[in-house]
Amino acid sequence: MSLAKTTRPVSIARIDGAAKAETRDDSLATEEPLEIRVGGQAIAVVMRTPGHDRELVAGFLVTEGLLKRREDVLDVVYCRMDGGKPEENIIDVLLAPTAKVDVAKLTRHIFTSSSCGICSKATIDAVRVQFPAIAKSLSPNRSVLSALPDKLRAAQATFAATGGLHASALFDAGGTLQVVREDVGRHNALDKVVGHAFFAERLPLADAILLVSGRVSFEIMQKALAGGIPCVAAISAPTSAAVEFARASGQTLVGFLRGTRMNVYAGTLAD
Amino acid sequence: MSLAKTTRPVSIARIDGAAKAETRDDSLATEEPLEIRVGGQAIAVVMRTPGHDRELVAGFLVTEGLLKRREDVLDVVYCRMDGGKPEENIIDVLLAPTAKVDVAKLTRHIFTSSSCGICSKATIDAVRVQFPAIAKSLSPNRSVLSALPDKLRAAQATFAATGGLHASALFDAGGTLQVVREDVGRHNALDKVVGHAFFAERLPLADAILLVSGRVSFEIMQKALAGGIPCVAAISAPTSAAVEFARASGQTLVGFLRGTRMNVYAGTLAD
Repeated sequence: MSLAKTTRPVSIARIDGAAKAETRDDSLATEEPLEIRVGGQAIAVVMRTPGHDRELVAGFLVTEGLLKRREDVLDVVYCRMDGGKPEENIIDVLLAPTAKVDVAKLTRHIFTSSSCGICSKATIDAVRVQFPAIAKSLSPNRSVLSALPDKLRAAQATFAATGGLHASALFDAGGTLQVVREDVGRHNALDKVVGHAFFAERLPLADAILLVSGRVSFEIMQKALAGGIPCVAAISAPTSAAVEFARASGQTLVGFLRGTRMNVYAGTLAD
Repeated sequence: MSLAKTTRPVSIARIDGAAKAETRDDSLATEEPLEIRVGGQAIAVVMRTPGHDRELVAGFLVTEGLLKRREDVLDVVYCRMDGGKPEENIIDVLLAPTAKVDVAKLTRHIFTSSSCGICSKATIDAVRVQFPAIAKSLSPNRSVLSALPDKLRAAQATFAATGGLHASALFDAGGTLQVVREDVGRHNALDKVVGHAFFAERLPLADAILLVSGRVSFEIMQKALAGGIPCVAAISAPTSAAVEFARASGQTLVGFLRGTRMNVYAGTLAD
C-alpha cells in the first residue's frame, strides 16, 4: 500500500493569527466509495481508504456474518466497465458454486426489528447467537500490552502524514505484530485485518490481541467477536455497550492503554 | 440531558506498572440501540447515546433526504409495548396525513448502485442533486473561528467525564453558540443538531457555522449540506472526499482549528 494511494495532495490556506494566509501543499487521508458486489449483485457502498480492498471486502462479509469459509470465495476482483481497465471503486466477490451466502441477511441485519433494537440486552443476545462466545479466554501479560502502542506507531506510516487515519493491528499473545491496516473508518481498518486472516485461513483468531487506535464501540467488539478475537485493547475509551458486549462474550477488553497504565473493562490480565 | 443518562458507571481494574491492580469506579459514554420507526414501520437501528432522541430521529431523516418540512411531522414518540410505559429504545415518527415520505429511499440510498459507488465524482454529484449547493457562501472572520473550540469545551459536560463522546455545535456567523449536542457517534451528534433546527423551523441553516469535535468525513459534509450549513470547522482533519465535497457544494471547510491556527480547505475566511 503506497502513501500515494492512502493520501492525496491538496492545496490549502494555512492561517496563523492575524498574519497573511499562506498557500501550502497539504496531505489528506484518501476517502473514496467502494461498491461491494457479491456474485455481481451490489450489496453495499462503503466509504474507505483505498488499499487492501480485497481484505476489506472479505472482512466486511465475515464480520457481518455472511461469509465463514475460505473455500466459499473463488476470487475478489475489481469490475471492468465496458471492457475497459478495472474500476478500482467497484469490487466483486466471486463465490464458489457450492457456497451458500445469504446477501439478504445484510439488509435484514441493519433494517429489521426482528433481532435487535429492543434493548441493549436483546441486541447483544442476537449478535451472540450469530457469533459464538469466545471458547477460551485470553489474559495477556500486562507488560505485553504496554508495549503494543509503540509497536503500532512504528508500523503506521500514514497517520503522521495526515492525522486522519485509524489503525487496527493484530498481535499474537506474546506481543509480536502480525498485521496492521489503516483506514479513515475504524470499522474498515478492523475489517481489513479480519479479511487478511480470512485469506490466510487463520480464522477464528483464537490467540490474537487486537489493538485499535480509536475508541471501542459495540460494533468494534461485535466485529472482533466475528473474527474470534478474544482480546481487544484500545488507546482510547470504550462505550458502555462495548463493555457489556465484551463481558457477555468472554472477551478481554482493555482501554486507555497509555504507557504502563491501562484500564481493564472485561476479563483479566496476567501480572 | 443528565449525566446519568449519557454516562454509565462501571467497575474496572486500573493498572499502573507492576503494582497490584486497583478496583475503581469509572464512567463510560452510554451507547444503546435506538430503533427508528416511521408511521410504525421500522426503518433503521442506530447505536446512539440516549438523550435528544427526538432531535436525533428528525435530524437523521432530514440528513438522509427523507424529510424536509416541519409540518410533515405530527410528533415523535417512544413506543409503548403491550400497553406498558414508553420504551426508550424504540421511537416512532408520526407523520401528517398529507406528508409524503418515501422510506424505501433510505434502503436504496445505502444499498443500490444506481446513484453512487462508481467514483467519488459520481457520488458527490448524486448527493448534490439531492441537496442543493449552498446558495450564499459564508466567510466568517478568522478570529470568530479561533474562539469556537473554547466555547464548545465550556459547553460540553460529558467528554471530560468519559473521554468518549463526540460533539457538534452550531454557532451563528458572529460566533455565538446556538446549540451543542453530544453522542458516541459523530454522525448522531450532527443529526441531533440538525433535528434541533428542524423543530425550531430554522432549516436551512443559512448563516450557521458547524463545529465538530472529531474528524470530517464525506458523510459529515453531506449531512451538513442537507441542513443547509455553509461553513464547517473541525478540531481535527478532513478526508479527501470531504474537501472535494465542500468545494463542489460551495461550503467553507476549516480543519485543525487550534488556537489561532487553522487550515482552510475550501472557501475563504475574512481577515
